[in-house]
Parts: sequence; structure tokens; C-alpha cells
Amino acid sequence: MRLTTTPLLSDLYQLAMLQAYYDWSMEQTAVFEFFVRDLPPQRNFLVAAGLEQVVEFLEGLHFEADELEWLASLKRFSGTFLDRLEKLRFTGDVHAMVEGTVFFPNEPIVRVTAPMPEAQLVESRIINLLHFQTLVASKAARCRLAAPGKLLVDFGMRRAHGAEAALLAARAAYLAGVDGTATVLAGRHFGIPLYGTMAHSFVEAHDDELTAFEHFVRTNPSAGTFLIDTYDTEAAARRLPPLVQRLRTAGIEPRGVRLDSGDLGAHARAVRRILDDNGLQGMQIFSSGNMDEFALRDLLEAGAPVDGFGVGTRLDTSNEAPYLDCAYKLQEYAGKPRRKCSEGKATLPGRKQVYRWYGPDGELRRDLVAADRETHRGGEPLLKLCMQGGRRTTPWPDLEQARAYTAGQLERLPTHLRSLEPAAEPYRADISPALLELAAELDRSPH
Amino acid sequence: MRLTTTPLLSDLYQLAMLQAYYDWSMEQTAVFEFFVRDLPPQRNFLVAAGLEQVVEFLEGLHFEADELEWLASLKRFSGTFLDRLEKLRFTGDVHAMVEGTVFFPNEPIVRVTAPMPEAQLVESRIINLLHFQTLVASKAARCRLAAPGKLLVDFGMRRAHGAEAALLAARAAYLAGVDGTATVLAGRHFGIPLYGTMAHSFVEAHDDELTAFEHFVRTNPSAGTFLIDTYDTEAAARRLPPLVQRLRTAGIEPRGVRLDSGDLGAHARAVRRILDDNGLQGMQIFSSGNMDEFALRDLLEAGAPVDGFGVGTRLDTSNEAPYLDCAYKLQEYAGKPRRKCSEGKATLPGRKQVYRWYGPDGELRRDLVAADRETHRGGEPLLKLCMQGGRRTTPWPDLEQARAYTAGQLERLPTHLRSLEPAAEPYRADISPALLELAAELDRSPH
Repeated sequence: MRLTTTPLLSDLYQLAMLQAYYDWSMEQTAVFEFFVRDLPPQRNFLVAAGLEQVVEFLEGLHFEADELEWLASLKRFSGTFLDRLEKLRFTGDVHAMVEGTVFFPNEPIVRVTAPMPEAQLVESRIINLLHFQTLVASKAARCRLAAPGKLLVDFGMRRAHGAEAALLAARAAYLAGVDGTATVLAGRHFGIPLYGTMAHSFVEAHDDELTAFEHFVRTNPSAGTFLIDTYDTEAAARRLPPLVQRLRTAGIEPRGVRLDSGDLGAHARAVRRILDDNGLQGMQIFSSGNMDEFALRDLLEAGAPVDGFGVGTRLDTSNEAPYLDCAYKLQEYAGKPRRKCSEGKATLPGRKQVYRWYGPDGELRRDLVAADRETHRGGEPLLKLCMQGGRRTTPWPDLEQARAYTAGQLERLPTHLRSLEPAAEPYRADISPALLELAAELDRSPH
Repeated sequence: MRLTTTPLLSDLYQLAMLQAYYDWSMEQTAVFEFFVRDLPPQRNFLVAAGLEQVVEFLEGLHFEADELEWLASLKRFSGTFLDRLEKLRFTGDVHAMVEGTVFFPNEPIVRVTAPMPEAQLVESRIINLLHFQTLVASKAARCRLAAPGKLLVDFGMRRAHGAEAALLAARAAYLAGVDGTATVLAGRHFGIPLYGTMAHSFVEAHDDELTAFEHFVRTNPSAGTFLIDTYDTEAAARRLPPLVQRLRTAGIEPRGVRLDSGDLGAHARAVRRILDDNGLQGMQIFSSGNMDEFALRDLLEAGAPVDGFGVGTRLDTSNEAPYLDCAYKLQEYAGKPRRKCSEGKATLPGRKQVYRWYGPDGELRRDLVAADRETHRGGEPLLKLCMQGGRRTTPWPDLEQARAYTAGQLERLPTHLRSLEPAAEPYRADISPALLELAAELDRSPH
């Protein structure tokens, strides 16, 4: 049974609405936009991610025969409707911010323009894909900013929320500047560099800790990072030098040690001293265990001699903000701007563009959310056509290019937004007066 | 490319360790146990879930030819090792708590007994599967306890962390007492009842709100729940009675209205009055938007006349505790108990059993975590053999049976654990003196 590509990965109401759209001949052009309403409390910016997966999903959109048979068995849908579903493909256009673009509340990052049933059906999965990768990329960017120059590896697979979360978290984190992942499948799917050490179980399975280290590295000579906290961290470090000498004579150069528990800063300092005092200056210290952007910052600000970090659960679950207040909303149908006025959730009507101005050093200065038909001289339009008539436009960036672009975006962040704490003054992202007037005008008409 | 069944959905170090286990002939029997170290701050109990998916994964465990070719291309693994991987299947035993069992910190809920390489390889995915469903089932149980007798529907697919999270969250929530889901694929996969209303986009696409309602319900006569908060909730409610009369003469009986924004309690009261004053006592009120166990409790305690709720994002992401501090740890290898002593993460050695005693009314009274060889008269052993020699033992409960069992578990919860706030006195789950003595004994031996 298909999981990630099936249009059955959707909400039931999408199918009920589609049946009605077809019945009542509502197949004119709809414009939907995906945006985030608010920043999570501690975040100053977001990083757009997940577009690649959205475009793949749209390009491949179709129902398979067994899916239609199952839908028929529910007795909720007419034969005419199921015939329409059989033929349904995505034929629309997509405008989007390039993956890795820094963005702010109320700015659409993806705009879908397509016949209403197509644009409606894909809502649930588009949100599902953009929401999660944007969430993790934004968290990973904060980790990157908190630990400049340090090796950062995604260790989060085991506590990510299911299989696809693990895979896409590895991708989003790599996009945003994390150096690699432990998740093997992410290496295969996306070409992300793979990293790994050893587990406590490997050490425990041996009667002697040093024998475990030696077995591991003789079998995996290029992966010689020893996990030294299974019993007593410093005692293990003190026993390492003779082993390292012996391995060197066999042509094996161990890379370092991993610390995974206790006061990581104190252990790192003590272990660094032991290694240095024994001529092992070249061995690196790698830390893991409850890491997030705050732990990284605190350890590094306190001068902990750590060369690299495994960042796992808190990255892949975006623990301090496990979801974003995001939406994919109808802004125009049949040529007319549309607006939802629900309390606290009112939308800005019409198809839009986001313009961005930069300072002389390339730093982000301000944004403007405007109607698509407005022009704003000097502002860079961030939403670009990336899919036309159901096919992606070329050239399309690969993950390495998108990653380099993201690094450039983070370099252009104003200093006050780079902090892990909420900025006293948020980034200036205005709404154009013409958009506000259009909203007011719609509110005056009856529904 | 396989996503949910491939052993490449794992951490790189598992493969590196496997290569060493084979090289150094460490293929004796290992016993690993999965347990949760601590309860999240606001929770008083957990609900075991995900066993079905673990067993499916273990039964089907194998590497495919293209996966082995890709592994070979990494130049990290020997030909001998890859030949072993080609033949690798899961041949071990699994003991587990029945899905839906209420459990507490330090109690193993799954125990895997298998040749070391098999038991090690599956660690990452076993944690990934048990962690997420247990997380969501535990959250859903709190929602169920907070809203007894109310219809609860999982609406969380769009902001769940990826495709599998959406699917498995629907399952875990249903197991724990939620009545159904909006996620179509979960209906197909697991037979979970499907629910759905309409979206704001459907209302906005029509020039008139009432026309939208009429179109929707004439096409979907069995799904007549009207979303009335797109523009003005009470104004929409006041316009409903003539439409409902007209539909009734056409033989269509609308079911109710959905509220999705603003002060849900105040709107529910106002709308209830409008409906009742117009002879629509039979129309139900369904609420959604930022729902979780606390919102449910607060609305119902304040007497809000709401008949059902859509619980979405906060359920599927387990927002107040998006991860559990859980582990899958080696407890025995080659007949000898093993123990990790890392600070704050020390394990209890040896293969274990959890015994439970009940009060005269069937209420949970106390648990004891003991060595497997101990016997404790009158205590119910909670870990039961469910897989032997790589195959599941029969009979195996289906999801409906597991759901009924879970409901029974929640009925047996002591009153003080049913609160949404942390209990002043946690449930009594002791560690047997024999286990503590074994741990101390291991600590005295050298590593």
C-alpha cells in the first residue's frame, strides 16, 4: 500500500468537497497560499523547506485502481465522481520561495494556482510536507548559529515521529547547515553524509571496555570514535593511550571519543586534559545527549573543548515548538479575491507576492507582502514560478545547491535575529496598503 | 525505495557494530528491553502502543538486493559482512505488554531475545515505532478521560510529522479511545472510522455561505455538518433554519455545525440557543481548533454544549511532551546480565518481568519490576510471549480488541492518576531487591 505518494493521505473532507465541486461545476481556477501565522515564542525567523517533496508529490499525483475500488466500497462517492478521480492529475502552477529562504509570519512561501478540485485535494499533504521540514530546518538553523564551525550530526531517527519524519528531518537539518546524519536511509535517499560511532550495548556485550573499542575499530578502521561513558568516563579515557599506540602500529588512527552523559562540559575538559597529557592531541571529542541549540550555546560559551555534536531527539521533534501555526488558504477563486474572517484567523485576500529589500552589505532589511499585481521597485520578489502546467520548471537546484543557498541566507540575517532569544524588535515585514484595502472592501460585501 | 520496512531505516552505527559482531563471533543470545525512564512532567501514566508494527517489522526483516548493492558502494563494509546481511532474518523471541496496557517508568514493555546481531540491528526502528505510538496513545487517553462520552476525532494529519506519523497517530489515538480520524489512509490501513466536515475554502469559493452548505450536503447527504465560522458564527447559525427545513423536505437530515475559531464555549452556547429556538434541537455542535486535553476539560467543565471535538495538531505532535525519555537497552548477553552505569542513565541488569497487583474492584494497586526468574505470587506478569522463533504467536488481538482492552485499562486507573495534573503521589512501581542486588554486584566487577 502506498504511503507517501497516495492522495488517500489526506483528510476525508477533501474528497467530500471534491465530489461537490464536480457536482456543482466548480472547476475554475483557485489560488491557495501556504503561510505561517505566527513565529513560535523563541524564534526570530523561519527557513522554508520541503518544496522538493511537494513538487514530487504534485508531479506524481494520481489515484491507483485499488485505491478507487476501496473508495467505491465506502459507498460515500458516486461512480461519476470516482471516474473523475481516476483521471485527476495536477495540471496547475506553483510559485514558491527557493528552499532555504528565510521568511516571516504572513508571508506565503508556496502559492498553488490550479483548477479548484486539484488545488483543494492536495491541501493536507502540502501542509504536512512544508510544515515539518520548515519546522526542523528552522530549528537546525538555530543549532548551526549556536555552534559555528563545529561538526553537527543529526542523531534523531529513533525518536522522530515515524519513518518519514526521520528521513525528512535528516534532509531539513542538512539543508539548514547540519553536516550529516546517522540515518542510513537518508544517506541513500538524499546523498547526505553519514556519521556514526558505537552504542553502549556494544561496550556492555564485551567483558572489557578496551576490548570492545579494539574490536570495533579493527573491524571499522575509518570509524574509530570510542564511546567512553558506559562505566566511568575519565577512567576509560585514562586507559586509552596504550590502545591507541597499539592501533597506530597496526596502521589504524582512532578519531576520537564520544561523551553521552553527565556534565558534558566538565567531562570534556577532564578528558581533553587526559588525552593531551598523553600525546593524543589529535583525538577529537564528540558529545551527544539532550542536545539542542541552547545546550550547544551554553557548552561552547563555557569553553567546553568539544569538536562535534550529535543532535538528536530535540532537533527531529523540534521540542520547544513541535508545530507551527501554519495554513494553506484559498485566496482567490474564479478571478475573485476571497477572504476568511474567522476570529484570530482572518486571511489576506488575493494572490500575493513577497518583496524583500537588503542593506548595502546584503543584510535582510525589510519585507513587504503585496498583491501580486503590485510592483515595488528595488524589492526582490521571493515567490518564483517553479511548476507550470503540472511540470517543474528548470533549472532545479539539487540539495547541495539548496544547502549552499541556505547558508548564504543565514549569513544575511541581521544580528538581532541570530540570537536564540526572541528579538526585542521583530523583523519588519509589512502588509501593503492595497492588500489591507482589498480586505476591507471584501468585508463590506455580503456572504 | 522502501521506507517503512527497510533495515536501512536505522542508524549507521548499527551496521558498523554488526560488522564487528560477526567479525569477532559475537552472535550469542542478547536480551534487550524497551522502557521509558521518566514520565513527562504532566503525565501520570503511559499507554503501551506500537507493538503490532514492531512485530510486522521483525517478521519481514530482510535486506533487498539493491540495498546491499548500495551498502557495498559505500566501501565501508566487507563482502563477508554483506553476505551475512543478505541472509539475515529475525529469528528471536519477543515478550511484550499487550497493546493498550497502562505502564510506568522503568517497566520494560517489550523484551527482545535474539542472536546479538539481530537484536542490535532492529534497535533504532523498534524505538522509533514504540516511542511515537506510545506518546500519542498516552496523550489520546488523557483526551478521552477529559471528555467522557463525547465524540473525539483525530484531525491531526496535516501537522503530524510526515506521512507515517499521521497514519500511526490515527491508530494510536483510536487504540486509546478516540472515536475516529479524518485521515483517509488510516481508514483504509486500519479500518478506523472516518469523519469529516468541510473546509473554509469550500465556503469561500461560493459567493454565498448558505449556497455552499446546500451544495455540500446535497452532494454528501450523509455528511451534513456545516462549518459556520468563516465570516460570522452566530449570523450563519441564524440563517440555517430555513435551509434545514428545505433540506428535510428533500429527505436530507443535516447533522450539525462545526465551530473552529474564537471563544468556542461562548459560540457554542449562543449557537445552541439559536438552533434550539428554531426547532433544531437535534443538530449537534462540533468544535475544533487548538484542542487538547486541557481545552477539552476547560470547555466541558464550563458547561459548553459541545457534542464532539476534532483534536488535531496537539494530539498528533503530543505538543506538551513531543518525546519520551525512552531506551532499548542490552540487559543480558551470552547468559550474563549487563549494565550500563552512565550518569543519570544507569540501567537495571538482566531480563525482567513486570508484576501487577489489583485492588478488589480491579483497580491498579502496585507494580513490581523483578528479575524474570523471580516469582511473585498474586502478581500478574505483564510481559507475555508474543513472538517465538521470529513468528508471532497466536491468538493475536486485532485493533478493535486492543481498543476494548485499552478502554478497560483506563477504567482500572486509580482516581488520582486520571487527573490531567501531576498526581501528588505517583503510582507505586517498585524495583525488586534481587534486581537491585544484582546491579550492585555487577558494579563491583571490573570492566
